[in-house]
Amino acid sequence: MRTGRLEAFSDGVLAVAITLLVLDLHVQVDPEHSLWSQLRSEWPSFAAYGLSFVFIGVIWVNHHALVSLAARVDRRLMFYNLLLLFFVSTIPFTTSTLAAYLRVGGSDSRVAVVLYGVSSEGMAITFRVILQHLLSAHLTRVPVSDVDGRRAVRRFGIGAFVYPVVTAIGFVSAPVMLALYAVVALYYILEKTAILPTDPRPLVTDPAPAD
Amino acid sequence: MRTGRLEAFSDGVLAVAITLLVLDLHVQVDPEHSLWSQLRSEWPSFAAYGLSFVFIGVIWVNHHALVSLAARVDRRLMFYNLLLLFFVSTIPFTTSTLAAYLRVGGSDSRVAVVLYGVSSEGMAITFRVILQHLLSAHLTRVPVSDVDGRRAVRRFGIGAFVYPVVTAIGFVSAPVMLALYAVVALYYILEKTAILPTDPRPLVTDPAPAD
Amino acid sequence: MRTGRLEAFSDGVLAVAITLLVLDLHVQVDPEHSLWSQLRSEWPSFAAYGLSFVFIGVIWVNHHALVSLAARVDRRLMFYNLLLLFFVSTIPFTTSTLAAYLRVGGSDSRVAVVLYGVSSEGMAITFRVILQHLLSAHLTRVPVSDVDGRRAVRRFGIGAFVYPVVTAIGFVSAPVMLALYAVVALYYILEKTAILPTDPRPLVTDPAPAD
Amino acid sequence: MRTGRLEAFSDGVLAVAITLLVLDLHVQVDPEHSLWSQLRSEWPSFAAYGLSFVFIGVIWVNHHALVSLAARVDRRLMFYNLLLLFFVSTIPFTTSTLAAYLRVGGSDSRVAVVLYGVSSEGMAITFRVILQHLLSAHLTRVPVSDVDGRRAVRRFGIGAFVYPVVTAIGFVSAPVMLALYAVVALYYILEKTAILPTDPRPLVTDPAPAD
Repeated sequence: MRTGRLEAFSDGVLAVAITLLVLDLHVQVDPEHSLWSQLRSEWPSFAAYGLSFVFIGVIWVNHHALVSLAARVDRRLMFYNLLLLFFVSTIPFTTSTLAAYLRVGGSDSRVAVVLYGVSSEGMAITFRVILQHLLSAHLTRVPVSDVDGRRAVRRFGIGAFVYPVVTAIGFVSAPVMLALYAVVALYYILEKTAILPTDPRPLVTDPAPAD
Repeated sequence: MRTGRLEAFSDGVLAVAITLLVLDLHVQVDPEHSLWSQLRSEWPSFAAYGLSFVFIGVIWVNHHALVSLAARVDRRLMFYNLLLLFFVSTIPFTTSTLAAYLRVGGSDSRVAVVLYGVSSEGMAITFRVILQHLLSAHLTRVPVSDVDGRRAVRRFGIGAFVYPVVTAIGFVSAPVMLALYAVVALYYILEKTAILPTDPRPLVTDPAPAD
Repeated sequence: MRTGRLEAFSDGVLAVAITLLVLDLHVQVDPEHSLWSQLRSEWPSFAAYGLSFVFIGVIWVNHHALVSLAARVDRRLMFYNLLLLFFVSTIPFTTSTLAAYLRVGGSDSRVAVVLYGVSSEGMAITFRVILQHLLSAHLTRVPVSDVDGRRAVRRFGIGAFVYPVVTAIGFVSAPVMLALYAVVALYYILEKTAILPTDPRPLVTDPAPAD
Repeated sequence: MRTGRLEAFSDGVLAVAITLLVLDLHVQVDPEHSLWSQLRSEWPSFAAYGLSFVFIGVIWVNHHALVSLAARVDRRLMFYNLLLLFFVSTIPFTTSTLAAYLRVGGSDSRVAVVLYGVSSEGMAITFRVILQHLLSAHLTRVPVSDVDGRRAVRRFGIGAFVYPVVTAIGFVSAPVMLALYAVVALYYILEKTAILPTDPRPLVTDPAPAD
């Protein structure tokens, strides 16, 4: 099966999820509270909005990099991909919950932090599983040696170990956690190494488009 | 007519519908009820959310398998496809209704179960009709014998007989019904047989992409 | 400019608009009113939902037929297309307004009918303008004679004359109007004549896909 | 990396954002206020809706023109593009805030004007940065001389200087600001000059589609 429609559906879900985030931003005309004071007191909503936007954006870039390694997809990959999109689709909910409880603090805030962490961790693990399956089922465009494959899984799948730590830190301080999420996102933005050393993307010259 | 734009529009509707499901998840800062107790008491929403996500995901995979059999689409197929998307687009509503009335129980819960069942049954029947039309109007990529065609319709269209049974069971116990829906989804996830024995997908080598 | 991205964006807007319609369907757990009685008293919402779904679906099919005539698009066509999408994007609003005021009746109901009619009429006129521009700017895949062009505009653009009449009837009876809209949709579903007598779609055999 | 998936994701976000705008339009059955009086008193919502629809529409057309200059995209361009989409995704929020506070006037209205201006300015700057990066990283389809490149950046990036002025005028009169935004949109609609004098689009004749 070609990768085109898997990408199209994933792009759709990612695009809808990233744009639905904005529905959690709202102010109300209220004689008691000026717009400016409302915007300030809503800072957790804006911070969570910005964070989750970057988060989904990074997922999209990584998803693109991952799928572009594949020559074709099999049925199992389609369901792994659905699992990834499931976690993505929960982000508007975990984001609004986090934003709502950040100011409340206490044990509620910790539950909200865990909820956000579970969603992130689910994505990180699924990404790792997808890469492993691409390699073990020989779906990549070019053959990958075992050594290169293991190294790629190790490096690309590092998020699965990072998010639990970040979540644990969120137990102590939610704002620090937000900052760490931003650092992780920044790492993925600046990190330019291709997933595989033999990344075949520059070699694509065939007339049949992959997407 | 080529299949590309039919797939693009269907992917769009499926992606929006699957992502809109999340709008039914929400908690509210409430001093009386902790976040954790809210999450627990909202379990029907989460169960229905997960179920409907898998449901639409399986529809997407099956839709993909079905359309990839077609060499081209005619006008009638476009309208059958719209009918399928109509039932898909009702899922966010039938899901939230089911989630709301699961805890209430009684006759209201049974009406919600029927509503969900009608939507599922509508999709199952439409899928069957689409496959029948693909075969009878000779829209498939490779010729299909009458015997193979009938067998494919029988196997692929089995959902049309399963959902009424599942819905009837939902009259007695909604949780058992949810579990059965999950089993049906699992069956479709694990079931790897191609729709047609002469499934032409591996044969596609022409430079003109179908999607 | 190729037609691909115009189609992709239009498909996106049409898919989101058609799926957002469902947000107007909702029931609430209410000890005073059973689910069944709520569903019955909400019939205008369901009728309007079904109608607008079919309406947008027909627009999609017609949009597809229209754009597939074009070999390329120019800047002006992109803005005409935006105008069409503008009217499409208002449908969730005009639909929910119509549903809300259908039961109220009186002059409010007539304003809601006009609102829905203006939106339909805007689309019908824009469709006509797009076809005229395709012909006059020679953007079609195959040359079209003046006689054929005028006949196509006349037949395809007939909606622009039908909707004001349907709206006027809605002043007297909104349910009759809904039925007439359904008839118009049915006409477009059953009508199989190609827009142009020299409809080039069956001739497309070049390896470069148009979408 | 090919431009196809960047366009698909951007089209998705733009299509969802432009269609979500409609969620800010709503009336309520209210015996005290006729539908007609509600529609009249909601004029800022309708004006803001129309304006933002045109705004996002123009962004789409310009995005299309910009990306069609590129032969390929690099990782940095993907993140610049995400930044652009971030500002786009805030438009439903800044639009509804502007609509809500336009009638209120006073300092709140000015804050809402600034919010809308920041969003517009962010987009204008990001567009400029994307064009600069396309040129400096030699991602364009055909070589562009330094002189032509600088001229293109100057002309295409003019919005970055226009929006602050328009926003400042909004401090004095929000309706005048709305009118000026409409004029800017009209300028982009009517302006037909290609971004680059050596705009390569008409030269595309290769069988491998760019999208």
